[in-house]
Amino acid sequence: MADSKPLLSLDGDPAAAEALLQDVFGIVVDEVIRKGTSASEKVCEWKEPEELKQLLDLELRSEGESQEQILERCRAVIRYSVKTCHPRFFNQLFSGLDPHALAGRIVTESLNTSQYTYEIAPVFVLMEEEVLKKLRALVGWSSGDGVFCPGGSISNMYAMNLARYQRYPDCKQRGLRALPPLALFTSKECHYSIKKGAAFLGLGTDSVRIVQADERGKMIPEDLEQQIRLAEAEGAVPFLVSATSGTTVLGAFDPLEAIADVCQRHGLWLHVDAAWGGSVLLSQTHRHLLDGIQRADSVAWNPHKLLSVGLQCSALLLRDTSNLLKRCHGSQASYLFQQDKFYDVTLDTGDKVVQCGRRVDCLKLWLMWKAQGGQGLERRVDQAFALARYLAEELKKREGFELVMEPEFVNVCFWFVPPSLRGKKGSPDYNERLAKRWRPSSRRAW
Amino acid sequence: MADSKPLLSLDGDPAAAEALLQDVFGIVVDEVIRKGTSASEKVCEWKEPEELKQLLDLELRSEGESQEQILERCRAVIRYSVKTCHPRFFNQLFSGLDPHALAGRIVTESLNTSQYTYEIAPVFVLMEEEVLKKLRALVGWSSGDGVFCPGGSISNMYAMNLARYQRYPDCKQRGLRALPPLALFTSKECHYSIKKGAAFLGLGTDSVRIVQADERGKMIPEDLEQQIRLAEAEGAVPFLVSATSGTTVLGAFDPLEAIADVCQRHGLWLHVDAAWGGSVLLSQTHRHLLDGIQRADSVAWNPHKLLSVGLQCSALLLRDTSNLLKRCHGSQASYLFQQDKFYDVTLDTGDKVVQCGRRVDCLKLWLMWKAQGGQGLERRVDQAFALARYLAEELKKREGFELVMEPEFVNVCFWFVPPSLRGKKGSPDYNERLAKRWRPSSRRAW
Repeated sequence: MADSKPLLSLDGDPAAAEALLQDVFGIVVDEVIRKGTSASEKVCEWKEPEELKQLLDLELRSEGESQEQILERCRAVIRYSVKTCHPRFFNQLFSGLDPHALAGRIVTESLNTSQYTYEIAPVFVLMEEEVLKKLRALVGWSSGDGVFCPGGSISNMYAMNLARYQRYPDCKQRGLRALPPLALFTSKECHYSIKKGAAFLGLGTDSVRIVQADERGKMIPEDLEQQIRLAEAEGAVPFLVSATSGTTVLGAFDPLEAIADVCQRHGLWLHVDAAWGGSVLLSQTHRHLLDGIQRADSVAWNPHKLLSVGLQCSALLLRDTSNLLKRCHGSQASYLFQQDKFYDVTLDTGDKVVQCGRRVDCLKLWLMWKAQGGQGLERRVDQAFALARYLAEELKKREGFELVMEPEFVNVCFWFVPPSLRGKKGSPDYNERLAKRWRPSSRRAW
Repeated sequence: MADSKPLLSLDGDPAAAEALLQDVFGIVVDEVIRKGTSASEKVCEWKEPEELKQLLDLELRSEGESQEQILERCRAVIRYSVKTCHPRFFNQLFSGLDPHALAGRIVTESLNTSQYTYEIAPVFVLMEEEVLKKLRALVGWSSGDGVFCPGGSISNMYAMNLARYQRYPDCKQRGLRALPPLALFTSKECHYSIKKGAAFLGLGTDSVRIVQADERGKMIPEDLEQQIRLAEAEGAVPFLVSATSGTTVLGAFDPLEAIADVCQRHGLWLHVDAAWGGSVLLSQTHRHLLDGIQRADSVAWNPHKLLSVGLQCSALLLRDTSNLLKRCHGSQASYLFQQDKFYDVTLDTGDKVVQCGRRVDCLKLWLMWKAQGGQGLERRVDQAFALARYLAEELKKREGFELVMEPEFVNVCFWFVPPSLRGKKGSPDYNERLAKRWRPSSRRAW
């Protein structure tokens, strides 16, 4: 009975299922791949929330709908969604559409598996390790460990949890109450996930000590040293420094060599949040911005940002070779990670993570890399830098635009100066009036 | 310069990009949708890891590859992957392929956006809320809150974090050191993510008190009461009970009414891990298994399991109407959640979560629901129960098979008794010898 019936069915008709998917794919090609990437179309058909609710008819009912209605629903979803692949989409740090990456995502979705064991994901267990190895090599490590996480915020949390576990393995069993008060350090320009992570992990946001940044937004190593001393004087135990390679707003790169020196002197775990800037490692011309990253203990790097691989693709990379990831997170669930399987069970990587089921995030990056080659990806990164430079030069030429600073990365920060304020820079309330109506815009150039 | 060039390009040729995607989609249809669901094909072309590595040629190089090579790589990835949509795939608690859900996943991937603000995901912000509202209504709540998380383990962690924050809001800032020792309670049959979560959140695995289960794997409320008293006597502060609706191995449903009574008496947060069993709420016939769930404070429910929506689709549902989720997790990052936008910023739901970028997980479920209707989904759940019943009856008739217990849900647990042990039940080393070579198999019938 169970065996005689195919699981794929659309009212019992496999051919109809295939036809539906063909139709939906046709809509995707027309509405996203063609129109969504055309500069003559809108980035978004904007609607106010109440109107959009009515247009979409979101309610879920008892009765099912016809295939024609379902296709119309797909069209409506696309019509009113933001086309993040549009050439004029400049919101947030992801955009563009790489066709190979999208191909990888479609294959991933169709295969629908979880990354936890070799028996259920043989290709992807091996592939993830190969991709992580490549990313580690770009960091400068010939060995190590790592895992893909559901986004950079969780990658950063992993780093915090690993750092405290390495110092206090007891914490896993006994909790933070068994530990002295801990302190971690990051600059005031860091991503907000550091504080969110500290709260979630039970450390509390007070454990995050803010280090001053210079006028370009880079952490000041001398202030880091001072904050460490201050924390110690207050009775806290410093355990981690989170440096940032590519801050969210200014695109600043913290001076990793100097920070690594401080960490070495004080015996602290160095985490580099390179979620945004990590992809610069692909460029021979620009990778000097991350000099010293090889001295880090952990690195978070999101190819879904600068490399346009698609959400989510966030690697946490580790220099560790002592199986720290598994020791810290493992729980040896016997129903899933049996030890008497007929293959090498170290391939069952699921116990390295705090998730159980885990999406496959490696194929899209792997396939794009195979197609473009490291050289192709390098050209893209270099082109993004060139476009940012071009934009900065254009802004300088145009009346009413004021560059906040010369870009070092692909973030170009500028003010639009309204006519009423032009020529009045230096007047007492200039900055206040500028900020009141016009926020600095951080725009990704590519 | 930046504006004149489409972002979608394959060596500068948009038509080639479209052709690539058409070709890859054709491969997906042939190899996954047709062959992958055919009982006359293999579930998996099994290869040992070393051989598979060679077959896949995983290495990432400097040079890119031709389109023909890329297509061949897609074929190879599919060839050696497990077909989780195959009618004979019985590993883990997800399987099958719903064509509407897959259509939703393909649209999601092509639109590639993040769930954090209305301006970047207008359709999906509204849709997520509508889907969560529907799931909450099935739980029995006319109001509340919720969010989709990257898997049930993280949904469970959210519940733990919310429960401790509600009791000790100070914890967010000051950390666990400012709190008394906490205790949470769950049965010995609970999912391993409860312990993983306790470790990750800094509570420590010791804070998880294990409650006894009866012979069917259901938590014993009297023992829960006793464990609470014991914890209090030891100086710990009970704050949360995590009941399970659909345990991983036996498929047991904890008695929620009785557990809710205990929680009420002691003022404890009741979380229900219904990752596996939550979908039973769709069935009028079987939803009594979750009677009392409306008294929970939070529920984790993974439609990617029983409803075959595809990884990942995990809802955390809350009865709370006091904005607890945002107060607990929010950090008011000013670059993303500006307060002076031109629409109602309560629609910017991104600050409810500990992630920053967050995948869209609602469309696939919404589209499938629109197509099938609640009635269609109910029929599927009922069919799964019927198939489990059928399998249990078949096992009773066949020599060499021993049912562990009558199934109450769709988990059918049985032993295969090797010929050498048949007829020897009750002999001194019977159980030991049975367990040594043959593990109990938990199989999803549908």
